[in-house]
Amino acid sequence: MKQKKYLLPDSEIPKQWFNIQAIMPNKPLPILNPATREPLRAEDLFPIFSEECSRQEFDRENEWIPIPEPVRRQYASYRCTPLIRAYELEEALGTPAHIYYKNESVSPAGSHKLNSALAQAYYAKIQGVTNVTTETGAGQWGGALAYAAKKFGLECAVYMVKASYNQKPYRRSIMQTYGSAITPSPSMSTRAGKDILTINPNDHGTLGGAISEAIELALSTPNCKYTLGSVLNHVCLHQTVIGLEAEKQMEMTGEYPDIVIACFGGGSNFSGIAFPFMRHNILNGKKTRFIAAEPSSCPKLTCGNFTYDFADEAGLTPLLPMFTVGHGFKPASIHAGGLRYHGAGVIISQLMKDGYIEAQDFVQTETFEAGVLFARTEGIIPAPESCHAIACTIKEALKCKETGEEKTILFNLSGHGLVDMSAYDMYLAGEMRDYALSDEELAGYISEAGKLKK
Amino acid sequence: MKQKKYLLPDSEIPKQWFNIQAIMPNKPLPILNPATREPLRAEDLFPIFSEECSRQEFDRENEWIPIPEPVRRQYASYRCTPLIRAYELEEALGTPAHIYYKNESVSPAGSHKLNSALAQAYYAKIQGVTNVTTETGAGQWGGALAYAAKKFGLECAVYMVKASYNQKPYRRSIMQTYGSAITPSPSMSTRAGKDILTINPNDHGTLGGAISEAIELALSTPNCKYTLGSVLNHVCLHQTVIGLEAEKQMEMTGEYPDIVIACFGGGSNFSGIAFPFMRHNILNGKKTRFIAAEPSSCPKLTCGNFTYDFADEAGLTPLLPMFTVGHGFKPASIHAGGLRYHGAGVIISQLMKDGYIEAQDFVQTETFEAGVLFARTEGIIPAPESCHAIACTIKEALKCKETGEEKTILFNLSGHGLVDMSAYDMYLAGEMRDYALSDEELAGYISEAGKLKK
Repeated sequence: MKQKKYLLPDSEIPKQWFNIQAIMPNKPLPILNPATREPLRAEDLFPIFSEECSRQEFDRENEWIPIPEPVRRQYASYRCTPLIRAYELEEALGTPAHIYYKNESVSPAGSHKLNSALAQAYYAKIQGVTNVTTETGAGQWGGALAYAAKKFGLECAVYMVKASYNQKPYRRSIMQTYGSAITPSPSMSTRAGKDILTINPNDHGTLGGAISEAIELALSTPNCKYTLGSVLNHVCLHQTVIGLEAEKQMEMTGEYPDIVIACFGGGSNFSGIAFPFMRHNILNGKKTRFIAAEPSSCPKLTCGNFTYDFADEAGLTPLLPMFTVGHGFKPASIHAGGLRYHGAGVIISQLMKDGYIEAQDFVQTETFEAGVLFARTEGIIPAPESCHAIACTIKEALKCKETGEEKTILFNLSGHGLVDMSAYDMYLAGEMRDYALSDEELAGYISEAGKLKK
Repeated sequence: MKQKKYLLPDSEIPKQWFNIQAIMPNKPLPILNPATREPLRAEDLFPIFSEECSRQEFDRENEWIPIPEPVRRQYASYRCTPLIRAYELEEALGTPAHIYYKNESVSPAGSHKLNSALAQAYYAKIQGVTNVTTETGAGQWGGALAYAAKKFGLECAVYMVKASYNQKPYRRSIMQTYGSAITPSPSMSTRAGKDILTINPNDHGTLGGAISEAIELALSTPNCKYTLGSVLNHVCLHQTVIGLEAEKQMEMTGEYPDIVIACFGGGSNFSGIAFPFMRHNILNGKKTRFIAAEPSSCPKLTCGNFTYDFADEAGLTPLLPMFTVGHGFKPASIHAGGLRYHGAGVIISQLMKDGYIEAQDFVQTETFEAGVLFARTEGIIPAPESCHAIACTIKEALKCKETGEEKTILFNLSGHGLVDMSAYDMYLAGEMRDYALSDEELAGYISEAGKLKK
């Protein structure tokens, strides 16, 4: 019998995260204080984030950052995650490509998000913080933080994008089962939320708006820190456990990936699987292609500008140098809630600019078609976000079928879709629609972002 | 760092199932033709089940039955499943007991049910069958068969107990995503369904009633076989992969279970984890205790009679010698739909009678309390059925705390509860009720079953 799964024992859980900032040919542009336009330092973030996460955000020296043992111990509940050869999908496609996927859906919270949630909760705890808050789009990050907060004895309040709150009641229930308080965003509980609701009482929410609310709560609550599930450097850092494990597991297969694929929201699962392999492109002359798969309805990498923009909708955050469609962007209410974010992380944006990363965009029905094929072949029902990575993988595998090339493709299955079944219902009933952005709409948003350019 | 997970590579997926019938001190009583009261032979089941499953049902000779390679290959998608040390739960309880659980929730279908679904679909396929049908209570078995049917290229129709169909829409969606057709039971599509609806148009269904409908469909459809997710000997046989793997994994821990616990509906996940260890009680003088955890509202083992009874509500099946509360029993609409069955499997019933098995019953809120504690400590949100095993494990672990005994407890986490979140919502909101059966009600049902005694 051909080997299907590549497993690693608890002892192989990485002891260090990989910090790609230390080896980037061009370092990221500085993050700016929006008032003074001066570069930010770690201390400037202390009011919002834990001190250690703030320091990690700016660390351009240390290539390897130790993972605290209490975090590794919590990782052991689900890590190392399996690397799986997608024989059944390959057969269904009739491709000569070898397809592997890293299965992050086995985490208790159902996605890769827990890798950073545990680290952020731990660092908050050890500096004496008692409360954490955050926003969540699809609910994956909120579920992860809810669980991580419970593990480290923190109270947790989550602002959940209203569209997801209504579409995904089970995600809310999961967070409540883990013991967190959930508020649909925009809400009346913050100034930022009230501002959004004043303009449009029926606003179904965005990640950017929920971020504004959570940051406001953190700044106005004693002993409370904000946490973010993607975009930032320290979040991408924590996710590198994915790729570090995958690197060892790919060695077990005797192959090395020609292409690495992940879906793209703010960049955390993409960074996680890609950076450890990209290290060998930067240092060792490897030629692996890295493809970010994003939704056509939120095309920051394929259509956005590289410029300074706010990370949130209300403009409360520092200015980040990133690919963005503008912080005022109102993405369509697609089911992949985790990909409805206007900007890309700072590190990824620089690497994209420097040619290390490609991007492709996919419409919603195409991604669900891929997800259903994956479910019927490999068994796992993927999260709507992960369906983008699968659609991209299928596209590349079918190219191999045309050319006869036996490429090795690795993608990250960032999460399962078991609490997104209403989306599958809509797809199977033929009731799912695609959202295309007109050139005018896009140009409007982008020029809005462009105003911030120096 | 203490080892949390015990993993086995694909090569360790069992090559044989363990057939406890071959070593039982007292063989099970024969299954009877209800008309003639003559013992059934394998051939008598051929119209309903695949020929190989029918033969396995009556096999009392072969202690080990080879697992076909195509079934093993499908097992490799998720097996070997992890054995996990529940350090976090132990700490929360303050117990000296060592708690381990076998995590069957990692199967694509979300539970142990796939272990038999793949075997049954495969055996149907190789004899030229094109369609399979079944019933499902909680939706775990239906989801498993839907997936297995897709893997072996069979059409699949599932009758889903109406209470679950309404309570668990995501389960229905999962089966549809795997490509199956789902009908709520009782339905107007069969005589059995019509009979039930004639008596009570608002009947919310039972497993027994859905079994009647599925069998009727199989008998009236060319080239169609029925499959069952529990109770029968061949189903329990297929589930022994759980315990066979756990046996190897417990060796890796250096411990041997003093107590083995599983929830109890018809007996399949219980058999799966228990029989390979019970083998050593029967053959090698081990003294492991085996505890079946059942709902107080359907107490076939703790309150039922050992007698001949039908396996379905309409009385279409052969007569089985089993612990039963009567095939006319109408269980309360508890969330653990998979445990709402009136009888226990034939092998288990005999082993229970012979003193190898204990049973304990739990009310619904007690099981959800256990499930929430488990979620908040070990991370995985358990299926309502599995919550019974956890409640029982906690009870035994707390006994150890009282006595100071460092017992080794192994339980089977039969499935996850991610598509049962509405039940958790009810529990967390304090809106869940318990169902107690009055002595009169119970006596009525049992004397009904008793009528069948020779």
